[in-house]
Amino acid sequence: MSKKFSTNPLRGLKDFYPSDLREVNWIKGILEDIAELYCYEEFEGPLLEPIELFAAKSSEELVNEQAFVVEKKKGKRWLLRPELTPTLARMIAKKSQEIKKPIRWYSTPTCYRYERPQKGRKREFLQFNADILGEGSLYAEIEIFNICIDILTSFGATSKQFQILYNNRRFIDALCELILLIPKEKMPDIYAVLDKSDKMEENEFEKYVIDTFQDEVVVQGILKLKETESLEDLLKKFDDIPNEFYESDGYNELIKLNKFIDEVGLSDYCTFSSSIVRGLAYYTGTVFEVYDTGKENKRAIFGGGRYDDLLSLFSDEQLSGIGFGMGVLMLSLFLKTYDLIPDFIREKDYTDTIYIASVNEEVANYAIELADIIRTEDLPCIVDYKFKNLKSQLSKAGELGVLISLIVGPKEMEQDEVVIRNMKTNEQKTITTKDLIKEIYKSFDELDELDPNE
Amino acid sequence: MSKKFSTNPLRGLKDFYPSDLREVNWIKGILEDIAELYCYEEFEGPLLEPIELFAAKSSEELVNEQAFVVEKKKGKRWLLRPELTPTLARMIAKKSQEIKKPIRWYSTPTCYRYERPQKGRKREFLQFNADILGEGSLYAEIEIFNICIDILTSFGATSKQFQILYNNRRFIDALCELILLIPKEKMPDIYAVLDKSDKMEENEFEKYVIDTFQDEVVVQGILKLKETESLEDLLKKFDDIPNEFYESDGYNELIKLNKFIDEVGLSDYCTFSSSIVRGLAYYTGTVFEVYDTGKENKRAIFGGGRYDDLLSLFSDEQLSGIGFGMGVLMLSLFLKTYDLIPDFIREKDYTDTIYIASVNEEVANYAIELADIIRTEDLPCIVDYKFKNLKSQLSKAGELGVLISLIVGPKEMEQDEVVIRNMKTNEQKTITTKDLIKEIYKSFDELDELDPNE
Repeated sequence: MSKKFSTNPLRGLKDFYPSDLREVNWIKGILEDIAELYCYEEFEGPLLEPIELFAAKSSEELVNEQAFVVEKKKGKRWLLRPELTPTLARMIAKKSQEIKKPIRWYSTPTCYRYERPQKGRKREFLQFNADILGEGSLYAEIEIFNICIDILTSFGATSKQFQILYNNRRFIDALCELILLIPKEKMPDIYAVLDKSDKMEENEFEKYVIDTFQDEVVVQGILKLKETESLEDLLKKFDDIPNEFYESDGYNELIKLNKFIDEVGLSDYCTFSSSIVRGLAYYTGTVFEVYDTGKENKRAIFGGGRYDDLLSLFSDEQLSGIGFGMGVLMLSLFLKTYDLIPDFIREKDYTDTIYIASVNEEVANYAIELADIIRTEDLPCIVDYKFKNLKSQLSKAGELGVLISLIVGPKEMEQDEVVIRNMKTNEQKTITTKDLIKEIYKSFDELDELDPNE
Repeated sequence: MSKKFSTNPLRGLKDFYPSDLREVNWIKGILEDIAELYCYEEFEGPLLEPIELFAAKSSEELVNEQAFVVEKKKGKRWLLRPELTPTLARMIAKKSQEIKKPIRWYSTPTCYRYERPQKGRKREFLQFNADILGEGSLYAEIEIFNICIDILTSFGATSKQFQILYNNRRFIDALCELILLIPKEKMPDIYAVLDKSDKMEENEFEKYVIDTFQDEVVVQGILKLKETESLEDLLKKFDDIPNEFYESDGYNELIKLNKFIDEVGLSDYCTFSSSIVRGLAYYTGTVFEVYDTGKENKRAIFGGGRYDDLLSLFSDEQLSGIGFGMGVLMLSLFLKTYDLIPDFIREKDYTDTIYIASVNEEVANYAIELADIIRTEDLPCIVDYKFKNLKSQLSKAGELGVLISLIVGPKEMEQDEVVIRNMKTNEQKTITTKDLIKEIYKSFDELDELDPNE
């Protein structure tokens, strides 16, 4: 006997058995329904892109450490996409002239990151993306926030369970430049430090900030950004704020977004948070993370932000966009925490399936013919190919949860008839094949009357 | 200015813009509907599998020439799956004890083959798969053929446009072994030669067979297998057929399948063809290819077959299965040949979308609130964020094909009202927000009456 292969998938990858996939598809279905209500159109890009595309705009970590690389030709390295946004930018840059603005697109790509598998993180993951491009005003922010809220509340989540924590990179830029006097070229480090802040203990974080910046003013400033609860409180902590700061785009965008959020009635769901900056390099304005606010699970479920320059990789066109990427697995863990995924969605529903059992093999063709008639009527149908032991065929139908079975034998075949059986009441009667469909619907009606809640 | 990246996808890969994806999703939807009518359950496996898994059972060509390989650790080579069946086998081997038989599963994975891109072949492709396992009888063959036929006829194709060409490897084995006296170990070469036969001119093929086998009896035998039209005609061409041949499993399976096909009424759609053997190594019994029979396009659209030993890679369990893999792109080319893909499915349908135009920005929040009310009713809604030039907002709605627009201005906002406009008749009236949903449905009813065919 030869050595057998493992039946496990590769580490960090997952098999989706039908019940697993039904759960994923149920979640995906709700995400897509919401996207369609906002008139977003679905698109899909290739799984492989040149590695340089991500090196240029996404993050060094993604490319250097977490990349799945394919190299078919010497020097041509392709990446299994770790995220979709660079592909989105490429596709839009290619056809920007012909696509009507604003562009509202969504997609649920499979993405890949080679990292240590852990709860909520696999090496292969579905990530729902929604983006609006070509709408520079903050109404785009409001639309995207509204989509996030509609998604989570559609599943039954409440503002007690999640919050959109938002910030603005231009605001952080202005604060760092004009109040803390940090030179512009240091900003990527500031973002990197802040992005790590929620993954560290307070002491650990303080040490990390001191090691990175050494400058006492900078360190104190960053610690303030990390701690602060409201914009007002934050600004109170700094002395000598120059007028330029209050005139900066960043400050004024943030103030305006705060105002919009209030006016549109989203303030229950949205909270300013000065420590949110996001890890990806391409964000330029609003950034946000949706947090599970439960005491035990406080963690980001997903996030996004505004990018002004992403098309610049491909063309000189300026097209600002804002969007988010939401891991379906992480979302499902959030939903499970609050018991928002009903169990029944993992089960295949056989209640509209017709099950055909046969007395013996002589009638096989007749059974198959009947199945054909039933499927033509758009009703699912199973033919049991055992062709013996009627009792065990019917008990199998019962186990599946089938409500209507048909029984055929030589006598029925000869007379163009069939026995129809109500699996709930175990009542059965002989009908003509001509009446089959009519009788099936009649049986469904009777079953409905038995249980009007079904 | 820095050098710009290309906006093209990598060679052999494809961008799916929304209209492209709508076409794919329309096709996929029909495939999945048929699978569900036969009570097949959807599953999905990981994109990456160990290269050895394909080396063992699929085909050398797939692994040696057409592989996209990822190597994260020295000596551990993972393949972007070129097909799904080995993953299916692995997943079933893992949980075989708990899954009820027969197993009916389908999936539409993205697969990868590094080959020269050509019409109907991309390096990245969607392939619909349907398999039934644990049903050893030929009724499984009939079910799979029925699914193939239902799929193609659902799109409107007829038996004049396609045929299922079927054969049986055990039959070819018996014929080669018992009539042509070819040793068993030569069979893979026989399959390889026959599988190439439809891609070659007759002369070219003859030369190729002579070069490969040299033995005159074998060469003549293979040429007969290539040419023949019916089982009867084929057998007439051989002298001295021993009794053992007529007693062989292969011969009897084929005879029985012929009989089933006749009895179940599929003979219009199915034709025996002794040259069909399929390229994949794991087939053991029935093999088939669905052909476009149009004079100009004579070519295989997709194919499949029965495999008895696929689980043996993972366990000692014997579980026979039969299934097929259908490239969605190749299918769509077939459908386009016969004009079976309606144009409208590429267009986004805005006929149930409500478009909100605003007189000025003062009413922005009110417009966004109304949109929220509408979406809660499961109606798609777009808010135009221009907030000026009402005429251009409405003409944009008209271009999209929107049938109902709402217009809001300061007066409407103040009085909790909104103007509802029928975009077909250009009639409009002021209604209260309280009546909004009722009035929207009323307008849809009026629009239906204008065009009862819609």
